[in-house]
Amino acid sequence: MVKWLNEKGLEDDVVISSRVRIARNIEDVRFPQAARKEESEKVTKDILEAVKNSNKNDNYKFFEIGRLSSLDKNVFIEKHLISPNLIQKPDMSSFLLRDDEKVTIMINEEDHLRLQILLPGLNLEEGWKLCSSIDDGLEEYLDYAFDEKFGYLTSCPTNTGTGLRASVMLHLPSLVLTGYANNIFQAVSQIGLTVRGLYGEGTKALGNIFQISNQTTLGETEEEIIQKLKNVVIQIINKEREIRENLLETRSVEIEDKVLRSLGILKYSRIISSEEAMKLFSDVKMGIDMGIIKNIESKDIINLMMLTQPASLQEYFKEDLDVEKRDIKRAELIREKIKN
Amino acid sequence: MVKWLNEKGLEDDVVISSRVRIARNIEDVRFPQAARKEESEKVTKDILEAVKNSNKNDNYKFFEIGRLSSLDKNVFIEKHLISPNLIQKPDMSSFLLRDDEKVTIMINEEDHLRLQILLPGLNLEEGWKLCSSIDDGLEEYLDYAFDEKFGYLTSCPTNTGTGLRASVMLHLPSLVLTGYANNIFQAVSQIGLTVRGLYGEGTKALGNIFQISNQTTLGETEEEIIQKLKNVVIQIINKEREIRENLLETRSVEIEDKVLRSLGILKYSRIISSEEAMKLFSDVKMGIDMGIIKNIESKDIINLMMLTQPASLQEYFKEDLDVEKRDIKRAELIREKIKN
Ligand SMILES: [Mg+2]
Ligand SMILES: [Mg+2]
Repeated sequence: MVKWLNEKGLEDDVVISSRVRIARNIEDVRFPQAARKEESEKVTKDILEAVKNSNKNDNYKFFEIGRLSSLDKNVFIEKHLISPNLIQKPDMSSFLLRDDEKVTIMINEEDHLRLQILLPGLNLEEGWKLCSSIDDGLEEYLDYAFDEKFGYLTSCPTNTGTGLRASVMLHLPSLVLTGYANNIFQAVSQIGLTVRGLYGEGTKALGNIFQISNQTTLGETEEEIIQKLKNVVIQIINKEREIRENLLETRSVEIEDKVLRSLGILKYSRIISSEEAMKLFSDVKMGIDMGIIKNIESKDIINLMMLTQPASLQEYFKEDLDVEKRDIKRAELIREKIKN
Repeated sequence: MVKWLNEKGLEDDVVISSRVRIARNIEDVRFPQAARKEESEKVTKDILEAVKNSNKNDNYKFFEIGRLSSLDKNVFIEKHLISPNLIQKPDMSSFLLRDDEKVTIMINEEDHLRLQILLPGLNLEEGWKLCSSIDDGLEEYLDYAFDEKFGYLTSCPTNTGTGLRASVMLHLPSLVLTGYANNIFQAVSQIGLTVRGLYGEGTKALGNIFQISNQTTLGETEEEIIQKLKNVVIQIINKEREIRENLLETRSVEIEDKVLRSLGILKYSRIISSEEAMKLFSDVKMGIDMGIIKNIESKDIINLMMLTQPASLQEYFKEDLDVEKRDIKRAELIREKIKN
């Protein structure tokens, strides 16, 4: 199981995880996409040094992208431990992963340094606190590119300022089912937040899972960004819960039918695509969180959502699998995990 | 369980039942749609008398349509024991049902007398033999309308001649799945046979069940009609089996997935329409007949196909149920029956 799922998160009937990440760059060094080899190596060396010096008590494992198999790289992505972007420049990128998998320090992704904190449930303040303290530690050893007027300089102008992106991953099956989701997401956009899917932009409807994050990082303090996002998320949580209750009252048989059918299919199917599995997982998780399905835990489903992604699936079976095979093995894995 | 399902039929991996029926009318009495009340009553009386005299050893129960509840009437139809047509004229129609439910004698349906034999599996000759012997018995006591040139006279010209309609009910999931069905049915039509669905014309695709019967009754002897139909049916059975085998070889996981998913849904759903249930029953029956599903019997599924029809369902629960309720109760009944 993904390590960050081991702890119980707050509001975990709706929220899956909270993520905080900051972008930093080293003064007077070209951004990664324009950097020379020696520059990149220097950046890597300096950051490793800084981490070592400033985080004495933490254990990090160091991974160089160029040395990971394609499978391994994608497993890290599927677990949300690194960004898809990081693996584009295998000759210069690397990352440090803290043993509890809550902290990732990406080196030479789009920026020289990207620090990510990932926590279960709704936990943005905690995330920001941890992020900020690690950042402060690093700043003692690194000369950040910082501008009086603009704040932290970043490769992409949308990150310039605080360099902070905070996001929360939510499971919103009822909002989608009743059609409320669209209106809410539109409203969310209008107040300067962004809604993406489980694995980013193009995956919006997957498993009714949505990531909500801030869009711009300039002109607000980190605390304001965190606060605003949290407030919006809480409203969405309440709405999702309210509708679930209402569904239980007014359309209970229909909902039972929906979630139990999905469970039936998961238990019996022999071939299942990733898309369908996600849809059914969403139903089953909804059934669990609404008290209809009793003998399965919500976090097992989230775990399965990640486990059944292409790379993780192959890693699990220790086998190279093409699409057809994956659909068969995915069904097998699900039957195995759901039985127990 | 429908009585005629108790006996094991021949070729019952494909054939559900065989039906033989003949149409007869009484000389010098107007056909039912034009008859006066007293005529109809006389016809009824005479037929009852004739049955009593000629079938001394058989036990028949007598039902007057006008005295049956709407539910009861439809249960008989759903079990294929009487024709939908019979209940259109409640003031004059009635029927006799032999205790083993293999023989129905309908009175004042479209013709004065319709004698139906219904047997499990492929059993046309047996059906015709039984039909013919009962008919011969009746003919001793009844003055049939018969014309040297045309044969037995009937209300609808398409029945004139032998008055015989023979039909076989088949379950052809593989032919439908692979698209062969259309071609075969077209060919079947061209040689003068008719293909209808489980409950007649408009229900063709329901549960992949098809009734194949002769179209005309003039110009062939009864034996020829029976023989021709049987020959065609055997070819269809062989083709269906051949494809099933081929599917097992070439697409086994896919087929397993299909039939097991359907089983999963049947076991878990809480609301299910008749249409969907039929589709899933067909899959499950196919799974049973192909050896994929082990602990359920093929005839239980056929029984369920009839039990979950609107009237039978209400009769089972001894409750009046509207469409919504029926869908819930149908799911309940299925879960109950499939568990055991
Ligand atoms: Mg700081
Ligand atoms: Mg005769």
